[in-house]
Amino acid sequence: MAKPWATFGVDLHVEPTGPGLRRGLTDALREAVRSGRLAPGTRLPSSRALATDLGIARNTVADAYADLVAEGWLTARQGSGTRVAERRVVPPAGAAPRRRELGRPEYDLRPGFPDLASFPRTEWLRAARRALARAPYDALGYGDPRGRPELRAALAGYLSRVRGVRADPERIVVCGGFAHGLRILGTVLRARGVRTVAVESYGLREHWRLLRAAGLHTTPLPFDELGTDPRELDHAGAVLLTPAHQFPMGVPLHRDRRAAVVDWARRTGGLVLEDDYDGEFRYDRQPVGALQGLDPDRVVHLGTASKSLAPGLRLAWMVLPPALVEEAAAVKGGVDTCGALDQLTLAEFLTSGAYDRHVRASRLRYRRRRDALVAALAARAPEVRATGIAAGLHAVLRLPPGTEQSVVQAAHWQGLVVDGLARYRHADARAEPMDALVVGYGTPPDHGWSGALDALCAALP
Amino acid sequence: MAKPWATFGVDLHVEPTGPGLRRGLTDALREAVRSGRLAPGTRLPSSRALATDLGIARNTVADAYADLVAEGWLTARQGSGTRVAERRVVPPAGAAPRRRELGRPEYDLRPGFPDLASFPRTEWLRAARRALARAPYDALGYGDPRGRPELRAALAGYLSRVRGVRADPERIVVCGGFAHGLRILGTVLRARGVRTVAVESYGLREHWRLLRAAGLHTTPLPFDELGTDPRELDHAGAVLLTPAHQFPMGVPLHRDRRAAVVDWARRTGGLVLEDDYDGEFRYDRQPVGALQGLDPDRVVHLGTASKSLAPGLRLAWMVLPPALVEEAAAVKGGVDTCGALDQLTLAEFLTSGAYDRHVRASRLRYRRRRDALVAALAARAPEVRATGIAAGLHAVLRLPPGTEQSVVQAAHWQGLVVDGLARYRHADARAEPMDALVVGYGTPPDHGWSGALDALCAALP
Repeated sequence: MAKPWATFGVDLHVEPTGPGLRRGLTDALREAVRSGRLAPGTRLPSSRALATDLGIARNTVADAYADLVAEGWLTARQGSGTRVAERRVVPPAGAAPRRRELGRPEYDLRPGFPDLASFPRTEWLRAARRALARAPYDALGYGDPRGRPELRAALAGYLSRVRGVRADPERIVVCGGFAHGLRILGTVLRARGVRTVAVESYGLREHWRLLRAAGLHTTPLPFDELGTDPRELDHAGAVLLTPAHQFPMGVPLHRDRRAAVVDWARRTGGLVLEDDYDGEFRYDRQPVGALQGLDPDRVVHLGTASKSLAPGLRLAWMVLPPALVEEAAAVKGGVDTCGALDQLTLAEFLTSGAYDRHVRASRLRYRRRRDALVAALAARAPEVRATGIAAGLHAVLRLPPGTEQSVVQAAHWQGLVVDGLARYRHADARAEPMDALVVGYGTPPDHGWSGALDALCAALP
Repeated sequence: MAKPWATFGVDLHVEPTGPGLRRGLTDALREAVRSGRLAPGTRLPSSRALATDLGIARNTVADAYADLVAEGWLTARQGSGTRVAERRVVPPAGAAPRRRELGRPEYDLRPGFPDLASFPRTEWLRAARRALARAPYDALGYGDPRGRPELRAALAGYLSRVRGVRADPERIVVCGGFAHGLRILGTVLRARGVRTVAVESYGLREHWRLLRAAGLHTTPLPFDELGTDPRELDHAGAVLLTPAHQFPMGVPLHRDRRAAVVDWARRTGGLVLEDDYDGEFRYDRQPVGALQGLDPDRVVHLGTASKSLAPGLRLAWMVLPPALVEEAAAVKGGVDTCGALDQLTLAEFLTSGAYDRHVRASRLRYRRRRDALVAALAARAPEVRATGIAAGLHAVLRLPPGTEQSVVQAAHWQGLVVDGLARYRHADARAEPMDALVVGYGTPPDHGWSGALDALCAALP
């Protein structure tokens, strides 16, 4: 049997300097170890391999290694080859200071995360194996800026079936998360001469910031119990909405308002950006189909795997009106494309039914958490009303006026990080600010959920 | 044993309309099939599952299914559930026209691609399994904009050992390809007030375009047999170079010029962007270490997995001077981050030694192709001289003056797509244009190489 180190081909960059090959090589290796460039424990190439690489005699390398073993810089052991000796090494000057790990709270109830502990690792790997076995060679090349055709076809089928989207693979552009899609659309809109995008009174600052970075003005629409009010859309060239489940307030957009938004878009040539971030997670009520189904020529449907699977996949998608496909693909270009392997794997995951199974299992999990939250509130904080609980991965807990900040602070003392509603309110929103918490169900693993609820209830008034 | 369709949970979005639940559901489902939203062969949820989702009686769903089976829209078969009938469906109006597949040439010798057929699929999946088994939950979250710490640590060790880079994980930013890194750096440089980036007389238009898109002017440096001449750097705030192996000319930057570039950077505060695109692929000569090793405070080292593994991974890296890390991470932001699973897998691939093994095997493969190219030229086109062949995945074939375009055209007639040197020449380069082909070794699979060489030699003068 070959010795492990003889079969283990490692590369090493070294430049012998000065007079004499042996001396030059010894000096260069010593310097590499001394400076920390070669870390303690690093295995060096065999003397034969390094000699071949450098085009010098094997004995010269063997002699240099022997010199450095004698000096204590290297160690040589039968069966494990030559390695850099384990010693303390002074870190090179100019190294950036390590970031300090901040003290982590025990529980995190901020919204926007799925339960990462339930990511279907085994199923995902199985899909990856099948996808990679089947992928043609050129799937590993640069590819279409719209994304892999396998994934676009799988998404078209899925979105059509589950969300009522009028999807065609040719009109789908895969992107690296919702924010990436929004940035692309912001650039497209600005290039088309749009100056103002209407947004909701409540939402994510990061999204408004991305639109502003594209040179667009964001102006908030009024909000009431029927959802966002589209009557003031007329000065906008586009509108960003969460119709199925307003983020974070949790109401679906009323059907008259859905129609009014589409009417506005048809009348003015405006564009609707539909953020369908958690459309698959509904519990007690009729599913709300995608707004895009009402007019695929005026609505961009945006979805993401960040809530249904994991943000770490960095996979999301846009279903675009035909007229926008080329522009969006050109803005995306070949620069910030997504990894082909994950795209192929997600396609296989969708078409094999594993995605449906995972969504169903997750829905059950989040629904149980939602029920436990409602029960805990009823028993221990009956003054606090949970809203927006019919769907999604988070709820809004209404608080007595003027108490939001102190409750967030009290939660912090309980080892719990939770967001107040204030951070989701657009600075220009006109409605009276209300006090509330936005509580995500996703982040704690299953075994941490009751502890998180205890900490939450202890902080509530 | 449960029936397969009973255990297979699929989701379906449908909105019953009109009077009467059964009639409404039947109409909605028929419309979904008629419009093509539900594709032929699509499996529907079991009547029990759909009834639960819609909050209606199971019989109502079963009746609606039965009506549609009777009408021929659906089929029901014991053991495989209810499916949409296989029928021709008229595509929905407004669908974008399919792109025409252009006639593909038989051989592709354009540079810039590795041999995708030799991507180590089995080894990669093995690394993915190990990486995913070991990954903490939060590895699947949004994460550090610099990239996964596991990958940054693995890259620091590898680049230090193999390329002589002075690397520290804290100063590495993972990005989705070299172009992505260059776009980030362009934005950082422009924000710092840089107006002009010196580039090489020969290179990739796409890179110059990215710099210009960031608001920077690109000005080419002179080029001769010692590589790019850095004497005219003084009006630039930064320089983009391929020091180890000029792309596409293939010469390494002369050691005096390497020193001169770093001297310039120290003297003026300029920044050197080192594109180390194929630094691991060297054949006959001493390896050229990374320029960054000479001054890690003034040189950004950029590397990529696109040549060593596959562009489809969309993984590359920058090793930055400490002062630039925060700026680059901020520009990258949380928007165009890379998939966590591929990052974790590449980290495992590097630390397990699989990357070294793959690079060594690839080097052997490309060297054989290079040797076959040289031999074929000697035998069949002795007038044509190959240069830049000591390293890399491509060679430059010098042609008689005035023949480049006709040779490219003749190659096309042989079913071969190959690039002339003209497309790699900066519009403002001052040197006399020379006629040449840039021939990549990577794209044909092993069995296609001799055929590609035959086609090439048949096109040469």
